Amino acid sequence: MQIDLANLEDFIRGSAFLGTGGGGDPYVGMLMLKQVLNDGMQVTLIDPADFDDEKTAINILTMGAPTVINEKIPSGPANVRALRAAEKELGYAVDAIMPVEAGGINASIPLVVGALTGLPVIDADGMGRAFPELQMTTYNVAGLSSNPNVMADDKDSVALITTVKNIDAERFCRDICVRMGGIGQMACYPLTGKQIKDHAVLNTITLAVEIGQSIRIAREDHDDVVSALLRFLESEHVGRVAKVLFDGKVTDLLRETKGGFSIGRVILDSLAGDGAQLEVVFQNEYLTALKDSTPVAMVPDLICIVDRETSEPITTENLKYGQRVKVVGVSVPEIMRSPQALATFGPAGFGLDVDYRPIELLGA
Amino acid sequence: MQIDLANLEDFIRGSAFLGTGGGGDPYVGMLMLKQVLNDGMQVTLIDPADFDDEKTAINILTMGAPTVINEKIPSGPANVRALRAAEKELGYAVDAIMPVEAGGINASIPLVVGALTGLPVIDADGMGRAFPELQMTTYNVAGLSSNPNVMADDKDSVALITTVKNIDAERFCRDICVRMGGIGQMACYPLTGKQIKDHAVLNTITLAVEIGQSIRIAREDHDDVVSALLRFLESEHVGRVAKVLFDGKVTDLLRETKGGFSIGRVILDSLAGDGAQLEVVFQNEYLTALKDSTPVAMVPDLICIVDRETSEPITTENLKYGQRVKVVGVSVPEIMRSPQALATFGPAGFGLDVDYRPIELLGA
Repeated sequence: MQIDLANLEDFIRGSAFLGTGGGGDPYVGMLMLKQVLNDGMQVTLIDPADFDDEKTAINILTMGAPTVINEKIPSGPANVRALRAAEKELGYAVDAIMPVEAGGINASIPLVVGALTGLPVIDADGMGRAFPELQMTTYNVAGLSSNPNVMADDKDSVALITTVKNIDAERFCRDICVRMGGIGQMACYPLTGKQIKDHAVLNTITLAVEIGQSIRIAREDHDDVVSALLRFLESEHVGRVAKVLFDGKVTDLLRETKGGFSIGRVILDSLAGDGAQLEVVFQNEYLTALKDSTPVAMVPDLICIVDRETSEPITTENLKYGQRVKVVGVSVPEIMRSPQALATFGPAGFGLDVDYRPIELLGA
Repeated sequence: MQIDLANLEDFIRGSAFLGTGGGGDPYVGMLMLKQVLNDGMQVTLIDPADFDDEKTAINILTMGAPTVINEKIPSGPANVRALRAAEKELGYAVDAIMPVEAGGINASIPLVVGALTGLPVIDADGMGRAFPELQMTTYNVAGLSSNPNVMADDKDSVALITTVKNIDAERFCRDICVRMGGIGQMACYPLTGKQIKDHAVLNTITLAVEIGQSIRIAREDHDDVVSALLRFLESEHVGRVAKVLFDGKVTDLLRETKGGFSIGRVILDSLAGDGAQLEVVFQNEYLTALKDSTPVAMVPDLICIVDRETSEPITTENLKYGQRVKVVGVSVPEIMRSPQALATFGPAGFGLDVDYRPIELLGA
């Protein structure tokens, strides 16, 4: 699998779906990627299975509230500065880079940086979706350090944070991000090939392209697009549980930018005329879905809101009154459901007072 | 001049005076210094004139609101970690360290770090007094960069900040300081011997010891202590203008900890029975003194509040209702009064809407 102008839109749509409402508007990522590809630069993807155990890679991302990222576009060159500062601190040049999350704009940013630097990009990530905080990774769950955490802005400021606990790095970096204007370009979580194979969520760039393909082909074939997408996700190739949690209309929306996050909730009224309501709570990403106050899906399982006709993913900052949507729930791989994983990015990781139950055991 | 157990208290009292109310309670600095000296460690002072032009030194300090520093004691070892991280970033080991300010606890901290590391301490500083912000230095006025700005805490977190403008470093570091619990141990402003000779305020550690001596000897001789101190400051050896701005009683005090600073104002009622009032505004340090709404002294000139009998300096966080005090004004060296210097740490540097007038031209 390679990313080029031919499959770029599939990739962007798929990563928007995996973004579960967060990770920034993928349209911005598409524009950035289109520019480097149109300029003749190339992105080289590597399957993690082909990446030597001793080689090294570092994670590349943009930190910031999606609301801000749409106005203050991420800077590829600032990301390269963060990468170089991390290499200086590490004392070696990395062999590759990779996305820390599979969803939203942070799926695209490492590809842009790969094109700018010529470094290959590993087809794997540390979240299998998008999460709002830096410590919410399978690497953190495995006890790996995010040090050095480097953040750069477009005014040539660079911050290098070293902490004992990854959650402290998140807190320092979030403050710096706010000071940088609500967005910062980061490099963190240096990993060996062995660590990636053992602890990353594998082949998620490929998965994003395939999700986008499945939506595009269903549209071309005039199929029911959401049903086609669910069939693909439940296929043996992907192996997820996927279902429509709700079919409704946006009737209420609360969204604020607070402490560097987009925080809020959206209320949907059922289109079936049965008076049912769905409430979806978000912190950058959709965290929990409650149907008439009963949970029907919760993190880390994916909650995705899509246009009910075209299955176009809708991010939290693009939610609008009156939209007719389907809310889709998708199970995550087992590596993301261990007790340690759930403590890190399950409901408890978000301070939510609810015990995790997998989506396949919940009604909808 | 060397600092040892014999002149420690003189030095502490003198640096409290130069602290102009800020820089943290010097008592904390005395305890820290006493401990390392009692443990048999030594502090070696160097006259800047004896420091080779090509040699290098870095400034060592504690950042934080004085109110916090009195409860959460600075950590010498964290300062050493900051120093080592700065050396790693610079790519060389420094030959010496130095205080960034002559007043308050930040006069003592570099001596503690000198004792812990064996590095000599240069008898000079970048403020000639205490100021609340990192860019308020004669080095910044001279166009020298504070990079790398390293801050460490007692939980083994380290932040390394690189910026184009020193004022941006102040802002990032202040946020990090707040996140570290309101106090952080720093290394910044690496300088050559030449730069120190050209741009530092020279021999201010010696000045602090001599101010303390002058107060102690006057007390022993049962002289009028404040008058003796003014005579010393106006002597040919020191060459300052010094005067009593007000003799009064604390009748009103507003003090809050905000954005990592102690901010407020104190009102004094005259003891002469003439109904006069003095208002002193502070941000960690005393910034302006207004007698019946007319300025009688302003930054960068020193405004010091001392006990009217013993001339013991009173810091902003030790101000209390009913204290009988004298407010002393002292002129600063010409290097601190250039137009660039006044823009950086004169009234304009603090956002105060008043044109600087030297203390010798103002009434009292």
